[in-house]
Amino acid sequence: MDKRFPSRFFLKGNKMENRIPTPGIQTDPDFSDAERAAVYRAMLTRRDTRGQFLPHAIPDDVLSRILMAAHHAPSVGFMQPWSFIIIRKDGTKRRVHDLFKTANEEAARMFDGEAREIYSRLKLEGIIESPVNICVTCDRDRAGPVVVGRTHIKSMDLYSSVCAVQNMWLAARAEGLGMGWVSIFSQAKLKKTLGIPNRVTPVAYLCLGQVEHLYSKPELEVAGWRPRLPIEDLISFERWGNGAANDEQARLVDRARAAQAVLNDDSTPACLFGGRRE
Amino acid sequence: MDKRFPSRFFLKGNKMENRIPTPGIQTDPDFSDAERAAVYRAMLTRRDTRGQFLPHAIPDDVLSRILMAAHHAPSVGFMQPWSFIIIRKDGTKRRVHDLFKTANEEAARMFDGEAREIYSRLKLEGIIESPVNICVTCDRDRAGPVVVGRTHIKSMDLYSSVCAVQNMWLAARAEGLGMGWVSIFSQAKLKKTLGIPNRVTPVAYLCLGQVEHLYSKPELEVAGWRPRLPIEDLISFERWGNGAANDEQARLVDRARAAQAVLNDDSTPACLFGGRRE
Repeated sequence: MDKRFPSRFFLKGNKMENRIPTPGIQTDPDFSDAERAAVYRAMLTRRDTRGQFLPHAIPDDVLSRILMAAHHAPSVGFMQPWSFIIIRKDGTKRRVHDLFKTANEEAARMFDGEAREIYSRLKLEGIIESPVNICVTCDRDRAGPVVVGRTHIKSMDLYSSVCAVQNMWLAARAEGLGMGWVSIFSQAKLKKTLGIPNRVTPVAYLCLGQVEHLYSKPELEVAGWRPRLPIEDLISFERWGNGAANDEQARLVDRARAAQAVLNDDSTPACLFGGRRE
Repeated sequence: MDKRFPSRFFLKGNKMENRIPTPGIQTDPDFSDAERAAVYRAMLTRRDTRGQFLPHAIPDDVLSRILMAAHHAPSVGFMQPWSFIIIRKDGTKRRVHDLFKTANEEAARMFDGEAREIYSRLKLEGIIESPVNICVTCDRDRAGPVVVGRTHIKSMDLYSSVCAVQNMWLAARAEGLGMGWVSIFSQAKLKKTLGIPNRVTPVAYLCLGQVEHLYSKPELEVAGWRPRLPIEDLISFERWGNGAANDEQARLVDRARAAQAVLNDDSTPACLFGGRRE
């Protein structure tokens, strides 16, 4: 690998362009208003799907596009640490579902009394009902021990695999499929069940398929468990906790608050643009 | 919080709908071919931008839409653990850039000889040149100690904040902005510099702005450091490392390989659909 080291990095300026080719430039890079709205539509209408799955198979071209979406996620040092275990067999699903059941009973015991009784009724996964499960992993060793950009934050490679999962979620939504992320497992037992090597971390276990319907809002939001937090409480300036201290900062907070207000009434991307383009 | 516990969860079936309201259903949920292609276009043309930034301010409505994209990311237990520190002042940028410089010198010392000499020439951040920096954080305590879905995988809340970052990246691309993720910092020093409390983890430090141009492919790919890995090497079936063992599995691998081949020649979403819709 060290022989290839000189071509490993982004370069300052053009000093070494004779040694390292740089990419061509995107021509016609601008998105139309309709294209931009479609990107926001996928984000605003994406749901974490636990139920409502239909058994129909996912066409190969649809599933391959979703995998391409994942494979074009950003990755630290272009590491591409992700792999995809495609699970369609009932036997595998049932073994994974048994792991979920065990972990979910452990989780229930973390709650007391009524809480535990209620937890036991929850619908937190669609492992068996969804036609396709995908385990997305991160191979911590895929690019050797020293990775550009991972020297100080070791979890950057895990974060790259998470970016791949979010691309899959948005691609699935654009393809009209529901997707849910199941996270109630013993990682060690999931690795054993799926034969995942020690160096590899399972990052997400996904349930994917056509659905009867998608909800218009997150179930927990409508159930009243937690509201969508006010965006103004999540924005600070220059330093944690510093609210708007000048007109420029106040304008951004006002604009974000207005955007959230219209989205609360009307979760369509159009309402993000209505009369407020600059 | 326990008083609200009964409304905290997804429910199996309708047993408790009398106690817990469920959301309305998305009407007209299907994406048109053009909308779906726009979602893939954002993913395929997104770049990790370190240079080429222009100093122009980002309009408030654009930045507020990007923050809305983040705030509509999936989060474990609807925790919404993210916050956003918006940095536009030169003084703050320079303090953060100093942290980068220190960490980058430490990173360089992890390499020897020619490698270290080359590393020192790399362009790995656009902190000063980009008009807006955003630190995206994760408040590990935002929803109390026991979070549904985080009981067994503690990093699920960090992953939620990463999903928010990926939404921001795709929204920025759709808005015609470049975005880069800077990860070469001491987390402890970054927290001190930005006044981030102990319970909160800085997940991503982002540089955002208009750019002269976006590259057509990742710089590291074109530089020959690492190729885009062959998708067929990343897919297994039912168990880690199991290649296609039946026609259904082989068809998916063939389809994914074909999709990657056309993308290598032509990174436009149209080529994902050309003549291969089912």
